[in-house]
Amino acid sequence: MSTTDPAHDVIAVAERARAASHGLALATRAEKDRALLAMADALLSRADEVLAGNAEDVERAEAGGTPANIIDRLRLTPDRLDAMAQGLRDVAGLPDPVGEVVRGGTLANGLELRQVRVPFGVVGMIYEARPNVTADAAGICLKSGNAVLLRGSSSARSSNAAIVAVLRDAIAGAGLEPDVVQLVPGDTHDSVKALMRARGHVDVLIPRGGAGLIRSVVEESTVPVIETGVGNCHVYVDRAADLDKALAIVLNAKTHRTSVCNAAESLLVHADVAGAFLPRVVSALQDAGVTIHGDAAFEAYDGVVPATEDDYEQEYLSLDISAAVVPDLDAAIRHIRRYSSQHTEAIVTEDVAAARRFTAAVDSAAVLVNASTRFTDGGEFGFGAEIGISTQKLHARGPMGLPEMTSTKYVVTGDGHVRP
Amino acid sequence: MSTTDPAHDVIAVAERARAASHGLALATRAEKDRALLAMADALLSRADEVLAGNAEDVERAEAGGTPANIIDRLRLTPDRLDAMAQGLRDVAGLPDPVGEVVRGGTLANGLELRQVRVPFGVVGMIYEARPNVTADAAGICLKSGNAVLLRGSSSARSSNAAIVAVLRDAIAGAGLEPDVVQLVPGDTHDSVKALMRARGHVDVLIPRGGAGLIRSVVEESTVPVIETGVGNCHVYVDRAADLDKALAIVLNAKTHRTSVCNAAESLLVHADVAGAFLPRVVSALQDAGVTIHGDAAFEAYDGVVPATEDDYEQEYLSLDISAAVVPDLDAAIRHIRRYSSQHTEAIVTEDVAAARRFTAAVDSAAVLVNASTRFTDGGEFGFGAEIGISTQKLHARGPMGLPEMTSTKYVVTGDGHVRP
Repeated sequence: MSTTDPAHDVIAVAERARAASHGLALATRAEKDRALLAMADALLSRADEVLAGNAEDVERAEAGGTPANIIDRLRLTPDRLDAMAQGLRDVAGLPDPVGEVVRGGTLANGLELRQVRVPFGVVGMIYEARPNVTADAAGICLKSGNAVLLRGSSSARSSNAAIVAVLRDAIAGAGLEPDVVQLVPGDTHDSVKALMRARGHVDVLIPRGGAGLIRSVVEESTVPVIETGVGNCHVYVDRAADLDKALAIVLNAKTHRTSVCNAAESLLVHADVAGAFLPRVVSALQDAGVTIHGDAAFEAYDGVVPATEDDYEQEYLSLDISAAVVPDLDAAIRHIRRYSSQHTEAIVTEDVAAARRFTAAVDSAAVLVNASTRFTDGGEFGFGAEIGISTQKLHARGPMGLPEMTSTKYVVTGDGHVRP
Repeated sequence: MSTTDPAHDVIAVAERARAASHGLALATRAEKDRALLAMADALLSRADEVLAGNAEDVERAEAGGTPANIIDRLRLTPDRLDAMAQGLRDVAGLPDPVGEVVRGGTLANGLELRQVRVPFGVVGMIYEARPNVTADAAGICLKSGNAVLLRGSSSARSSNAAIVAVLRDAIAGAGLEPDVVQLVPGDTHDSVKALMRARGHVDVLIPRGGAGLIRSVVEESTVPVIETGVGNCHVYVDRAADLDKALAIVLNAKTHRTSVCNAAESLLVHADVAGAFLPRVVSALQDAGVTIHGDAAFEAYDGVVPATEDDYEQEYLSLDISAAVVPDLDAAIRHIRRYSSQHTEAIVTEDVAAARRFTAAVDSAAVLVNASTRFTDGGEFGFGAEIGISTQKLHARGPMGLPEMTSTKYVVTGDGHVRP
């Protein structure tokens, strides 16, 4: 499949993707939905091939001593294949973003102006262990009219190869060009590097994975990047909080699922309610198995370990939380400005003025009032599909659905108009 | 003003801008408009200072043998100051993009979701000779709630210093923090480099100028960039064109103003109308002083010089145009895909199907039907103010007005909601 030059190989697949993208950009919603349903059917009818590929990856991982939780993320089962197929069907059910008129009107001189959504063209995805991302990304990109180059982790290479082979056959069977979904050739970091330098050949790169992966893509890529996912999320319990709601929200935000970017990693409590709230929240968190890394006020409680500067900067992704008491709302805002990764922050308060100030002054992709940080999610927001959660400010911010996978163009119609 | 370390200096001004941006993000429209009007008044009441600064720049440029057309762009006059002041007043008259609700609704679980426009935070502008950009950019950034770091060309340094001093005083007088508008310290390329590497300190970088400047920023910046302006724009005269409209549009697109990015640089003509159109367009262009770099069909006419591959790739910005006859519409689309910078392309046709196919298949920021390419402009599009014309696909594409100078965030309000 590959020569000895990864840059050459990557540009070759990107150019095939570009050629195929022209047809896909013009495909109707009906044509794309037909392909998506065929992709879903094929994943199930050819489950044996996909599971066989996956078994190879799992075996190799086990032989290499990979930790059990990573192997669990890598492993496919008939149930997980069902979920992947259902994901593709769900995307077929969503409106087509391509062609949507974002704004329009008629100018004073009679020119008719429309700003319409169009696909990016060629999207590159760089992601880690979970092979379900392969089908999700292929489906979302196809529906939004984009060709996609998939670069999963090498630990999932047999799974991804099997999934992509099945999806490509289904796409071709549905009458679209299969080169709209391709694997990036090569297993080494050189092929990732080549993808990141393929400016002009790839229109946008979306890394999904840990902080290290995302940082390296952001630093090295000359292709425009949509940064996703690192979340050092805060819950601030205000002086005017309903402490029952606060307790439920803190517990849910921290313990509902710890390994995800919208889990809470830091707790701030207004000094006026510290006396009433700290005993309750410390014992509830500890009962749930959480280690609290606290400031002096929290350290007064048994089992709380002292927080360092590092703790406040941490995205733990584990049963740990940093915690501090703040003198007032503005101190909470300053703390968040200093330490937050600008993913999601929540305030618990019954005070309208405090909620208004917090939501205005905290500059994060999502700011929640009296709700768990765990709600920052494309599915929860009702987008139907999510390619990731953007933590950058350009183009898309927060959960990215189908519209975020498009650009726009202006279509302007006149009748011989020239500029006077 | 500066130490010996440009990176340190740039980060210091960026951090001051960041601190000031927090207040600006919360400023009301009334407060911002008051500052904009004060800035306009100050440019006029302190015109002497600005003109004196500009005279230094012009003198230095003349002494250095700078070409007359560049000196003309550098020179400020009372009329040009009036126009700068009027530009600031116009921005004051535009709606405030900050706080606009882009979408919203109530989720099945009762959570209220709003996606609202928010400022980027700190914007960096890198631009060339024209000192009016200094006031324009300051006004547009202030209205959109962004602090701005201005890095104009060193040839305009005294003009820019005088303008920024006047604007900062006016901003402070109007009760806002003057550090929302700052010059980047240092005259050397090192300070530009430092700005491009100030990721985390600067939220977005917008280069405005020639192709070389823009390419170097795009290649070297780790700060997210909005690419502007290079335009290798095409006019395609279809088989079904009204040839009178076609002639007027080609002439307007090429000769109305040659030094701008939305000027036409290439002409494509359907073979079926070449016999009727070429004699007319060749003589009209030549009468207007245009040199035609043509293919074999055009070369049959006196004075047409042979086109090379380079010509079709050129953004001439002069009285030159490349030209070719194409066998059909799809060949025109293929030619445009190959050579266009994806800024603006126009089709001249009376055929609805041809217009529909061209506007769908040509992937440029603006695609025009029966209108001159010169209309791709924020002012012409009715945006009231323009910070540049984006030729990238991420975030903003085409003329950028105030809404394009914002990001968004999700504000989600519940009543103790947790994820089940």
